[in-house]
Amino acid sequence: MAIVKVEIRTGAYYDSVILMQLQRSLAEQPGVIDAGVVMGTEANKDVLEQSNLLVPEAVAANPDDLVIVVNGDDEAAAQAAIDKVDELVSARRSSAGDEDYRPHSMETAVQMLPDAHWVLVSVPGRYADGVARQALELGKHVFLYSDNVSLEDEIALKKEAASKGLLVMGPDCGTAIVNGIGLGFANKVRKGPIGMVAASGTGLQQVSVRIHQMGGGMTHALGTGGRDLSEAVNAITARQGLDLMARDPETKVIVLVSKPPSPKVADELVKAARSAGKPVVVNFIGYATASRRMDNIFFATTFDEAAELAVSLVDSDEDFAAEPDISMFAEGQRYLRGLFSGGTLQYEALLVLAHYFPEVYSNAPLDKRYMLADSLVSLEHTVIDLGEDEFTVGRLHPMMDNDLRIRRLEREAADREVAVILLDVVLGYGAHSDPASELAPAIAAGIKTARDAGRHLEVVAVVSGTDEDPQGMDDQIQLLLDAGARVETSNDAAARYVGRLLQAIERSIHPIRTVEMTQVDLEPLKKPLAGINVGLDSFTEALVEQASQVVHMDWKPVAGGNEKLAGILERMKGK
Amino acid sequence: MAIVKVEIRTGAYYDSVILMQLQRSLAEQPGVIDAGVVMGTEANKDVLEQSNLLVPEAVAANPDDLVIVVNGDDEAAAQAAIDKVDELVSARRSSAGDEDYRPHSMETAVQMLPDAHWVLVSVPGRYADGVARQALELGKHVFLYSDNVSLEDEIALKKEAASKGLLVMGPDCGTAIVNGIGLGFANKVRKGPIGMVAASGTGLQQVSVRIHQMGGGMTHALGTGGRDLSEAVNAITARQGLDLMARDPETKVIVLVSKPPSPKVADELVKAARSAGKPVVVNFIGYATASRRMDNIFFATTFDEAAELAVSLVDSDEDFAAEPDISMFAEGQRYLRGLFSGGTLQYEALLVLAHYFPEVYSNAPLDKRYMLADSLVSLEHTVIDLGEDEFTVGRLHPMMDNDLRIRRLEREAADREVAVILLDVVLGYGAHSDPASELAPAIAAGIKTARDAGRHLEVVAVVSGTDEDPQGMDDQIQLLLDAGARVETSNDAAARYVGRLLQAIERSIHPIRTVEMTQVDLEPLKKPLAGINVGLDSFTEALVEQASQVVHMDWKPVAGGNEKLAGILERMKGK
Repeated sequence: MAIVKVEIRTGAYYDSVILMQLQRSLAEQPGVIDAGVVMGTEANKDVLEQSNLLVPEAVAANPDDLVIVVNGDDEAAAQAAIDKVDELVSARRSSAGDEDYRPHSMETAVQMLPDAHWVLVSVPGRYADGVARQALELGKHVFLYSDNVSLEDEIALKKEAASKGLLVMGPDCGTAIVNGIGLGFANKVRKGPIGMVAASGTGLQQVSVRIHQMGGGMTHALGTGGRDLSEAVNAITARQGLDLMARDPETKVIVLVSKPPSPKVADELVKAARSAGKPVVVNFIGYATASRRMDNIFFATTFDEAAELAVSLVDSDEDFAAEPDISMFAEGQRYLRGLFSGGTLQYEALLVLAHYFPEVYSNAPLDKRYMLADSLVSLEHTVIDLGEDEFTVGRLHPMMDNDLRIRRLEREAADREVAVILLDVVLGYGAHSDPASELAPAIAAGIKTARDAGRHLEVVAVVSGTDEDPQGMDDQIQLLLDAGARVETSNDAAARYVGRLLQAIERSIHPIRTVEMTQVDLEPLKKPLAGINVGLDSFTEALVEQASQVVHMDWKPVAGGNEKLAGILERMKGK
Repeated sequence: MAIVKVEIRTGAYYDSVILMQLQRSLAEQPGVIDAGVVMGTEANKDVLEQSNLLVPEAVAANPDDLVIVVNGDDEAAAQAAIDKVDELVSARRSSAGDEDYRPHSMETAVQMLPDAHWVLVSVPGRYADGVARQALELGKHVFLYSDNVSLEDEIALKKEAASKGLLVMGPDCGTAIVNGIGLGFANKVRKGPIGMVAASGTGLQQVSVRIHQMGGGMTHALGTGGRDLSEAVNAITARQGLDLMARDPETKVIVLVSKPPSPKVADELVKAARSAGKPVVVNFIGYATASRRMDNIFFATTFDEAAELAVSLVDSDEDFAAEPDISMFAEGQRYLRGLFSGGTLQYEALLVLAHYFPEVYSNAPLDKRYMLADSLVSLEHTVIDLGEDEFTVGRLHPMMDNDLRIRRLEREAADREVAVILLDVVLGYGAHSDPASELAPAIAAGIKTARDAGRHLEVVAVVSGTDEDPQGMDDQIQLLLDAGARVETSNDAAARYVGRLLQAIERSIHPIRTVEMTQVDLEPLKKPLAGINVGLDSFTEALVEQASQVVHMDWKPVAGGNEKLAGILERMKGK
């Protein structure tokens, strides 16, 4: 009759690899049906229960306790397996080999490999903060694989690192690629001109493998840990990574990936990315955007799409660093006045403009806070829909009757704070038979009013029509051009042009305050990667496999993981 | 000295064209500086105030009153202009010409043009409901340009129309194209295989002109009025339009456009579009979607993009009507179990799956309502992340240790309600050196378990890796294929495949209940358009210009717009 035997070892530390191997070895012993070797956490007890291994002694175990359970054909077989535990553990330890050459302190490790700029930390979560802190004190970047690290510790570590120009990638950072060498879980990806910053381990892996599969390659792919874009952490590592990629001349295209971010932090990071001077592909999961592209920012919704975009952008010859010329505007000119006859064109323009400045007043605003008290009086940036019901009681639609728009245009042009007027000209049957013949003189007059007062008025007209429309589209466009307007046939493109222009003016008035941070030195990243690994053997093996220099530090918790004893030792040290 | 003279006419009705022309004519009289001719609404009073024409008599006017204001060089000039009003009005009326041939009732109009299937209504809002109702009673589709129509009237009209297989496009429907002929404001757009349904006038115009500019063309473009996708109206017209486009053999690609819709109504409409059997491009402004494509649905964020997608899809040779084969599954098999090692891959899969069925349980769900009480016990559709912290205390990450996944797979395979198992296999440094050697036998065993019980278990494996990864990607894939799994390298594609499969099963269990509606007859839409126009002259002129048959009905409000008198007349008729 099958019987379950259990042994609890209190306050003992074994690393996860040993636990896995021990469990497998026990399960392979003669007469053993199944075995479990786990720390006594609630989740692990649930797992034991699923396998019918949760006996009462195991139920009583604490998270610090090692629980060894064996289900054997009979008592003797089960007991024999349990009795083999120590033998199996020491066999495993000696087979790991090379232990004599492993340093027992980080200082020694650094002396052995002074070129190491990276410390990989994969010790259990509760010890990880201390190890990472030690690495920062020694001036090393930290790849922090460990999970179960507190949010407070994460924030403190990252702030400390940022002040020193160092990176803390993690906690719970599964992967990174630095100068072609994978840290943690990382695929062998071709070198190339795409750089990535990812608050998502599998996101980084999936995008990088798709880039490779599509023939592309990467400079660096830096993980940040999945919480980096939370409001609490405020994207400290992602900001550093983005800044680094923007400065790195080898990186031509940047990819930003994140698990569902705080919308506020995501917005800020996108804003920072706008100044990168390079195309940036953004794939923040669950982050809704009104458009697919905003200047140098390209929004992707899946990993596949992010990879495709990044690869396709490598060969773009567009100048993503170009800034619009705003020298023709006079001091004080800064606002937009949009005068639309088409309601949805107006709405689309508001959505596009929101990427540049969300504060746009309207009689049909995106956000009720920006509802105009009086539709006839503009405030700061204002975009109105003159086809709204309020304007059309006993009055023709503005597509037929230009009177209201012309009167409004005249008034806006006289406003010394107005820099840009945006309007639509909708052609087609039913509409005014020659709108440009009325709008063009009004535009020319408005431009003259501004010029006479020493200002420049930029008028942008979106002409919506076809070459077969009764008004003659080309003639209409020519009239508007002759009047001094800029003409677009894409509403989206017109709104983006206006957005960029006004944003440039705004930045000239209020330059972006950059977050104080010590820049990360690019030079060490260009050298062959050398690292110190503290924790999982397999990460050392992976670096060796990639012909990287690595020193494995032989780490053990204080007092062998016995917390009571560790506490006594701490107190004896007078800490 | 300039002086403002005013005249108020109580209870008089003039159409908007006459008001505009009157205002212009007055402004052109000798000695006149500016003039205003408007109905006495608050908005119009504000407009008068802007032009310094709001004298106290005008302030006191009611919305039904006609307000005539003239600012003249002197009293004589202003008075002379006002005295000319009646003369100008009657000159205008006789110049309109052909009035003798205009029917005064809709019945007569229908007798004059029995082929007319459309009635265009552009009378002032408060009269529009009555005119539209009359058109429906006569079995005509209604193009309802008028705005200022109440929501209640809109709903009642649309329900009435739908029950008769008729369309009410509007109210506030600015535009439509039926069989190449534009109604209201409409551009001259090439005929072609793209059909559109739009709850946005300028959206319809802008997308249609961009399609034309890109060389494409349209079957029909039906406006619905901007409120059609509100929760109250529930997309009655859009549903009819979509159904019609889906049935129309000439329409190869459908475009759906809307002003910001009710998310619930938008979801339902997208669901209906999934069954169209054709590609459908959706551009619902402000409607966020997790991916760009879902089977036959393509999400666009701007009008330009909607047009580009539509034109590019015309030549697609993909079979959008194909349904997945689900005949191999046994009765009762219906659920998905996803066992991920990569957290963000799991999250992306959840986002994609949400397009097929939002109810997916998880230990890291999109919606907290679907949080698993116990991560180890699946419920209905379940997708779990085995790399979550709860599983990794004192245990290796599932990318290194397959034990938990194998145990779970075995259990899920034995569940008679499970149809599909989805899992990821992440290769690369640091990960398990040969994951397929452990997972493939488990997959084969799971498939066998199901087969032995008379079921089919579909196992889909997403392999994330490169051809240079140490595990040998091709070998890993081959092992999984040999075990009977379907293998994908794109997580997105894998999730979409699974979504389609399970959705097909679900539909076989619970067929979609279609909303009861009388189908709109396609035949009249294929004939040259003939219409009856009630309201704006310019819409009649536009139809004539397009060589379309049209009868202009000479409409005037009861009692010349005098509401008091109209009320008395109504009571006399005993209504």
